[in-house]
Amino acid sequence: MSKLVIVGTVAFDAVETPFGKTDKILGGSASYIGLSASQFKVDCAIVSVVGGDFPQEYLDLFLNKSIDISSIEVIKQGKTFFWSGRYHNDMNSRETLVTELNVLENFQPTVPDIYKDAKVLVLGNLHPAVQSSVLDQMSDLSTLVVLDTMNFWMNNTLKELLEVIKRVDVITINDEEARQLTGEHSLVVAAKKIHTMGPEYVVIKKGEHGALLFNNGNMFSAPALPLESVFDPTGAGDTFAGGFAGFLSETEHINFESMKKAVIYGSTLASFCVERFGTERLELLKSEEISRRLIAFKELTQFEI
Amino acid sequence: MSKLVIVGTVAFDAVETPFGKTDKILGGSASYIGLSASQFKVDCAIVSVVGGDFPQEYLDLFLNKSIDISSIEVIKQGKTFFWSGRYHNDMNSRETLVTELNVLENFQPTVPDIYKDAKVLVLGNLHPAVQSSVLDQMSDLSTLVVLDTMNFWMNNTLKELLEVIKRVDVITINDEEARQLTGEHSLVVAAKKIHTMGPEYVVIKKGEHGALLFNNGNMFSAPALPLESVFDPTGAGDTFAGGFAGFLSETEHINFESMKKAVIYGSTLASFCVERFGTERLELLKSEEISRRLIAFKELTQFEI
Repeated sequence: MSKLVIVGTVAFDAVETPFGKTDKILGGSASYIGLSASQFKVDCAIVSVVGGDFPQEYLDLFLNKSIDISSIEVIKQGKTFFWSGRYHNDMNSRETLVTELNVLENFQPTVPDIYKDAKVLVLGNLHPAVQSSVLDQMSDLSTLVVLDTMNFWMNNTLKELLEVIKRVDVITINDEEARQLTGEHSLVVAAKKIHTMGPEYVVIKKGEHGALLFNNGNMFSAPALPLESVFDPTGAGDTFAGGFAGFLSETEHINFESMKKAVIYGSTLASFCVERFGTERLELLKSEEISRRLIAFKELTQFEI
Repeated sequence: MSKLVIVGTVAFDAVETPFGKTDKILGGSASYIGLSASQFKVDCAIVSVVGGDFPQEYLDLFLNKSIDISSIEVIKQGKTFFWSGRYHNDMNSRETLVTELNVLENFQPTVPDIYKDAKVLVLGNLHPAVQSSVLDQMSDLSTLVVLDTMNFWMNNTLKELLEVIKRVDVITINDEEARQLTGEHSLVVAAKKIHTMGPEYVVIKKGEHGALLFNNGNMFSAPALPLESVFDPTGAGDTFAGGFAGFLSETEHINFESMKKAVIYGSTLASFCVERFGTERLELLKSEEISRRLIAFKELTQFEI
């Protein structure tokens, strides 16, 4: 099986939506990416850090999904990263209520030797200098590197962010962030500019409006599956990245055609994520459900002309 | 050839965008719908009203596109409907600077006898009571009726609007208007509610994010073609409706499959409209250009899984 390494946060989230409120539940970019990628036939490892307060139950959940957790460092005397947020009525805007970095503050990820030649590496949302330090550890130039980031790093650590962007193959970014990063309103022009910064593939996530894939002149547009209700959008972008990377890990040839499919798999996984609080829906997800929803995606978009 | 009747405004527009400013140029819903529909093999008539100030040059333009203008009433002593607006930097919001109804104020459309059994009728954005009066004149129950409307009528004449919605086969409406009309945030739920108001087909236009087609449980999503620059968005929605209706007029069977293609044709025509000021791009449009862009749409959306 191909190897996939995910570097990112494993955290506690507390979420408030118009439908309800959670206590501290499993969260973090690497958790969503890993649970989503574990739907594919891939040898998947999470590199992250948690505190002594992190429940064995969540580690067992990863193990049950055949995720290698030997590189999730447990700092016994520390506390796990905690994020809390509230979504407004339209689910398109949210406010952060609490961010406690805790053990994340001094996180120095170490990629295990056996994963240093992984087929795919996903750099989940983290300080760009930390993301770069992971790249320094990889041994195989053919590793496909997928970078996720957000506006916080553009505002605060732009220089380091541009350094890491230079070194990756794929960037996943949302529409407003693409506009901020490039100063361009047109996403077509923004993607062109991002190509010149490094990434050969640019994936622009548009939430309920789907995602766009760009590859030097080629374009692909995937809708989001229109849903009757979005229960909790937390983790949808990471779940997308996990499905995207999981599919590519399984795939023989990495090119524009397989990237298109990867976007569809990512969108499919993300459409499940938002149906329940946190990772709940991903935990219970069956492969037949994914197959059925892929067909729904196909029916939603395909036409004869 | 099948017959298509378009009832709507023929107007003067003055538009200001970040790229420049126009004098009074040709505008109005029926102008855009007609120029767009004239790309299809269809016997197309515009029912509208203009003032004595309306230039022969614009009427000749319609004639050159084989549009029947015998039902564009010219009120010699009156002035043509005039709208002026300004777009902001992101092109997604605009403000109306001037609205002079002029001859439109007392517009009583009369459908010519030979078009009373038209295959397709498009009711462009007008007072819903006026739209209803057009429906009263039609003689053939099999006429496919496409209604366009906007939030102004929801705010001011909701009762009359609901009356006309009850009587149409297809409604085209933008996402915010669908939400306002139904009080539902999810477009899937909004479309369901609109079905119960009358229309068998619901087309929700999402501007740069494309369009959704709903038909009692069936869904289709068409992207907008991602563009490097949007020069002037005026008329894009009407151009969509014109391409949509023009295609359906040409088509033998009207069902969900042909509606999907109609949405793609509508999106294709709209993608040209925004490239220049006003109707300029539509006036010069060649059928080879449309064919090429249809292929671009197909490449943008199709995938194998």
